[in-house]
Amino acid sequence: MRLCTITWQQGAIRIIDQTLLPGSLTYLRIRNTAGLWSAIKNLQVRGAPALGAAGALGVYLGVKNSKATSFGVFVKELDAVAKYIATSRPTARNLFWGIERVCSVAVKNKGKPVKAIKELLFREAQRIIAEDRQACRAIGRFGSVLIRDRATVLTVCNAGIFATIDYGTALGVLYRAQQQGKRFKVYACETRPLLQGARLTTWELKRRHIDVTLICDNMAATLMQQGKIDAVITGADRIAANGDAANKIGTYSLAVLSSYHRVPFYIAAPASTFDLAIKRGDAIPIEERSAGEVTELFFKIPMAAKGVKVYNPAFDVTPHGLITAFITEKGIIRPPYSNHIRRIMAGDQRLVLDDKTKC
Amino acid sequence: MRLCTITWQQGAIRIIDQTLLPGSLTYLRIRNTAGLWSAIKNLQVRGAPALGAAGALGVYLGVKNSKATSFGVFVKELDAVAKYIATSRPTARNLFWGIERVCSVAVKNKGKPVKAIKELLFREAQRIIAEDRQACRAIGRFGSVLIRDRATVLTVCNAGIFATIDYGTALGVLYRAQQQGKRFKVYACETRPLLQGARLTTWELKRRHIDVTLICDNMAATLMQQGKIDAVITGADRIAANGDAANKIGTYSLAVLSSYHRVPFYIAAPASTFDLAIKRGDAIPIEERSAGEVTELFFKIPMAAKGVKVYNPAFDVTPHGLITAFITEKGIIRPPYSNHIRRIMAGDQRLVLDDKTKC
Repeated sequence: MRLCTITWQQGAIRIIDQTLLPGSLTYLRIRNTAGLWSAIKNLQVRGAPALGAAGALGVYLGVKNSKATSFGVFVKELDAVAKYIATSRPTARNLFWGIERVCSVAVKNKGKPVKAIKELLFREAQRIIAEDRQACRAIGRFGSVLIRDRATVLTVCNAGIFATIDYGTALGVLYRAQQQGKRFKVYACETRPLLQGARLTTWELKRRHIDVTLICDNMAATLMQQGKIDAVITGADRIAANGDAANKIGTYSLAVLSSYHRVPFYIAAPASTFDLAIKRGDAIPIEERSAGEVTELFFKIPMAAKGVKVYNPAFDVTPHGLITAFITEKGIIRPPYSNHIRRIMAGDQRLVLDDKTKC
Repeated sequence: MRLCTITWQQGAIRIIDQTLLPGSLTYLRIRNTAGLWSAIKNLQVRGAPALGAAGALGVYLGVKNSKATSFGVFVKELDAVAKYIATSRPTARNLFWGIERVCSVAVKNKGKPVKAIKELLFREAQRIIAEDRQACRAIGRFGSVLIRDRATVLTVCNAGIFATIDYGTALGVLYRAQQQGKRFKVYACETRPLLQGARLTTWELKRRHIDVTLICDNMAATLMQQGKIDAVITGADRIAANGDAANKIGTYSLAVLSSYHRVPFYIAAPASTFDLAIKRGDAIPIEERSAGEVTELFFKIPMAAKGVKVYNPAFDVTPHGLITAFITEKGIIRPPYSNHIRRIMAGDQRLVLDDKTKC
């Protein structure tokens, strides 16, 4: 069975409820924006590219039954829906990108009847989904060059099927390498507090018959010390113009450890994750989540002293100097990032086509 | 109420069952060596210095009802008991040290009646307990010099009351600093997979009214990046002659991160943790534990794909070059370690008395 993280089906958004994995693969139908907001907030749908699709579909969901007949009234409703969905989570660029892209279609077509505009919004959301599918496969094609035969790769969180529509960014690179007949091993960091690595990444890699071993996050350094890791590949939630990259908490730690042990550190992400309006990583808003995620997990069993203070940032920022390269659907981006990110995002092909460096 | 991790009471070893914390403070009476073996293996009693006491008391427990009347028969029984207890866990030096110390008393007193030897074994075990109480307080005195007022300290696992008889090594330093009126903050790494930091360290620090904040292990780097950590203090399970130190998994990661962020990295441990017979850290045996600790925790709820491979080393080795100093009951030991460890362990006071360096 083909997995699809998020899609539109019978008048509703259909997602895989990621909080129920690995125990059960359950689909959830979301029929209104309040349902979508809480599904995003509670990580039933998560992963930056998947959130791009969620934002886009969510805007359409929020206005499809609008009674507005004038553009002015309609666009006010649209704006309110967009703003509401955008408050669900602050860090991933893709969520806002998806919302903005769909909203901009309305503005561009303001002369048309509301019904026609609604149809165009829906098509734009569908286009975003189709583009993500293609982008992930292009990331896979570009990135698989970096995976040599018999390599061992470390990853964190889930930058796979469940973070995108149906293929993955960091894990897409591995799926492509597998398709090319390369043999490799993967270590998956469990990714506390919410265990996306343990729950989602091991599940999808095992499903694809990729040799995966689970570790706790604090074991990655030991594997590198033993010389067992040839490359680290992660996803990203937002990448600033200078290449500083926000991703799941723990990524920065892996980047420092990679630098210390001279292991290449790659970030795989589509263009929609780049936020060229933000110059440096310290301007990226970092979501802090509740103490209960750390002290109780999903299990409702106390895991720490009652009432203990908790610091629970969901993301961290890796400075661009620790990143060996970005793997995007437009090609591999190498330093100097400020220059190369801008040029490659603008469509300059000359920088990327001949990249044959291997890990 | 005063906590005592391990003691002798009414013909049995009495321990705090550490697997039940923080939910409940429950004492367990251990009446035979099989019970002690499984209590050690299952971490109901854990922490290198506490294991020293467990080994010592365990040897006495195993032979106290011996029917042997000749030394030859008695010492064979003693040897069998010692070897059995020593198989419970491989890494912490203190366990073997406690066992060996008690056994050596028998050998030294071979001319005496078995009954008298038994009494001497018991006294030696009690002496080990008394010495640990003193050693931890001396570690606290020496180490508190390194804690400046208003410092923020990071620790991992539990090197506190529950790792010793009743005071702690790394946390003993903090208890002493508190007694001196210093104000400071502590970040406790939860310490996956078995959460000794979350379950034990936050519990005992809160009980002593120390300002403690719990983090997941993968968040330590972010705190250092933000400049929020002034020093890292951990315990150790075994320290080689050159200063390479085995401690709870995740310690090496913190040491690399400390080095990168120029944060002092201290190890607090009694002399009984030093193993001068081992030249370098790569000769320290590292225990690997079961996959279930990572995939199921205590909760019996699946946290990863069914049947996924797991790598679960319980310890790692931090090379001496990453360690700023050792805090021992004989004083603070600074590099060069091969020379200084040997001399300070042999009782040379000149190297330690004037150490006033602050973190």
